Amino acid sequence: MDTATLSPANLWTPTPHNQSNRALNPNQVLRFNNKHHHLHRKFPLLCFSVNPSQNQTSPAPSTPTIPPLVVVGSANADIYVEIQRLPKEGETITAKTGQTLAGGKGANQAVCGGKLSYPTYFVGQVGEDAHGKLISEALHNGGVRLNHLTTVGCAPSGHAVVMLQPDGQNSIIVVGGANMSGWPETLTEENLETVRNAGIVLLQREIPDSVNIQVAKAAKGAGVPVLMDVGGVAAPIPQELMSSIDILSPNESELSRLTGLSTNSFDDVSQAALKCHKMGVKQVLVKLGAKGSAFFVEGEEPIIQPAFSVETVLDTTGAGDTFTAAFAVALVEGKTRKECLRFATAAASLCIQVKGAIPSMPDRKSVLDLLQSL
Amino acid sequence: MDTATLSPANLWTPTPHNQSNRALNPNQVLRFNNKHHHLHRKFPLLCFSVNPSQNQTSPAPSTPTIPPLVVVGSANADIYVEIQRLPKEGETITAKTGQTLAGGKGANQAVCGGKLSYPTYFVGQVGEDAHGKLISEALHNGGVRLNHLTTVGCAPSGHAVVMLQPDGQNSIIVVGGANMSGWPETLTEENLETVRNAGIVLLQREIPDSVNIQVAKAAKGAGVPVLMDVGGVAAPIPQELMSSIDILSPNESELSRLTGLSTNSFDDVSQAALKCHKMGVKQVLVKLGAKGSAFFVEGEEPIIQPAFSVETVLDTTGAGDTFTAAFAVALVEGKTRKECLRFATAAASLCIQVKGAIPSMPDRKSVLDLLQSL
Repeated sequence: MDTATLSPANLWTPTPHNQSNRALNPNQVLRFNNKHHHLHRKFPLLCFSVNPSQNQTSPAPSTPTIPPLVVVGSANADIYVEIQRLPKEGETITAKTGQTLAGGKGANQAVCGGKLSYPTYFVGQVGEDAHGKLISEALHNGGVRLNHLTTVGCAPSGHAVVMLQPDGQNSIIVVGGANMSGWPETLTEENLETVRNAGIVLLQREIPDSVNIQVAKAAKGAGVPVLMDVGGVAAPIPQELMSSIDILSPNESELSRLTGLSTNSFDDVSQAALKCHKMGVKQVLVKLGAKGSAFFVEGEEPIIQPAFSVETVLDTTGAGDTFTAAFAVALVEGKTRKECLRFATAAASLCIQVKGAIPSMPDRKSVLDLLQSL
Repeated sequence: MDTATLSPANLWTPTPHNQSNRALNPNQVLRFNNKHHHLHRKFPLLCFSVNPSQNQTSPAPSTPTIPPLVVVGSANADIYVEIQRLPKEGETITAKTGQTLAGGKGANQAVCGGKLSYPTYFVGQVGEDAHGKLISEALHNGGVRLNHLTTVGCAPSGHAVVMLQPDGQNSIIVVGGANMSGWPETLTEENLETVRNAGIVLLQREIPDSVNIQVAKAAKGAGVPVLMDVGGVAAPIPQELMSSIDILSPNESELSRLTGLSTNSFDDVSQAALKCHKMGVKQVLVKLGAKGSAFFVEGEEPIIQPAFSVETVLDTTGAGDTFTAAFAVALVEGKTRKECLRFATAAASLCIQVKGAIPSMPDRKSVLDLLQSL
């Protein structure tokens, strides 16, 4: 354990490389089917400090020396308006209030990585507009490295109008904008190289499939694990993409949609996860909301993680993104599956106690403090 | 005419002070009922160049020496989303495209003044957010002086979601934000002093009546004419405000709502204008869309100005604001009523040939060129 730094506040159990329990080798535990798992190829001894990037011999934040989390995906301006009812055609109504916040599944997950003090890159696109600046600022403030955030002139920044109604039945209008338009036919070598050098790659479904496919293939070719959050467009996942994914992470309704099976009971969820295995993904991380989560690895017993009890659930926005990103961070840091689930559950349980998506994402210390207190 | 500068491109007829036709004295023509009309108090000889502010002995743009146009009002981020149909409760739909532009009647009218190269101040509020920056930039780029634009922390920038539908039946959700909240109970002495030193003050109805009342009273007390565009909230205009307004400018539907009378024919409009006179406003400038405009002064024959014929009407957004602001600019420059109407009509006819509100507002040279070509 001589090279694993461990701050006093860090109660996140270290998993030293020389430990006899071979199950703690993430390459074996997680069965990425990659012959040369990147983490082990380039960074044999993992780091478990409160801020891993600050414990490297070369701590410059712009050039992380530990394999970073690379999130490729969407960035949005989420425009929330609080209304009594939807307007009719041709009608002008006044909202009680409104607020515009940076969001989008890609940006959310990147900021979560950044806030958890793991070196995180975001590969994505914004337009040349005020919303683009809002998004850049939010990513920057969240500790995300912006080297691969591209500004395109051909489309507005992606945005979503979220019409909050008193009964909680929210109506949403999504403008794909720069998330969906203006991507180069072939991703730049610079972007692909960042993907190949990642510790783990996170994808979602709010950018074109063609981009996700290129990223997943580049990652797979370099032995970098790919975790895909199913959130985003409801269209079927192309087989080409499916076969390059290591871990698929749907919530219940996404799992149901994806498999065409019901997900009402745990047995249902298990059957649906089994179908995902048959569709080509060996690991399925299912988010079950208040019921917790479950990790299904082909041919093994599922690992079930109940949610942590929370006094007041204030706002679940961004909780799924927080869960997925925190799981990825724990995974790239070499935790066991059970530890990854607990870390992600702790992060998500902190997220739902604060309003908003990005503003509610916890820092590493808060997550570790919560895990210690349990 | 020795002090009136007149560029070769300027075909806007100068109205020299020493001319025998006394009707060209704006103080008399417009019957502001102000004993000491500001223009005459501080700047006896008017300026008719393409850029009046550039022809002063002290041309520093931040300290205009000719009495400026002061617009007190709203500034918005207008979020346009192009949809096939409105979403239902709980539904998420995808927009074809979207764009967010600076708008709001106050900001629109201020930018129109700035683009017409008349020294223009905007007194208004934005939030500490990306939309506030968008608005500030648009005002600045439009040549508006920002000394009196306040950023408030208690509210978001005003914004409006404009849901454009294929049948042209647009639904709008307005968030008042910093336009409606966070104004000091009593306006700052600095703001009021700017109002008192104005050549003319422009108001609309997208900020609290209490603010408009303070401004109108301060202007009236200093002999500064007040032109109020009726656009904005549909609530009745308080008598206290009405009695401090020199010129009221509604469109047909606003005139109808204001008076409770129909405005289907010109006779109807005349009757409604007469009712406005009875309500305390001696001058009523009615915008009649494609039919043109009419100026009703109590006890006089109305002046009728047909619209200029335009090959293609592309987008009428901002045309009313352009008309009102251009009229105010011509007025403060000492034009006759007829000249003011023609100048405003020319500006509006250029506006409707370009998409957007602020992007479509013409510069002075374009307006003068059009007037020359007729």
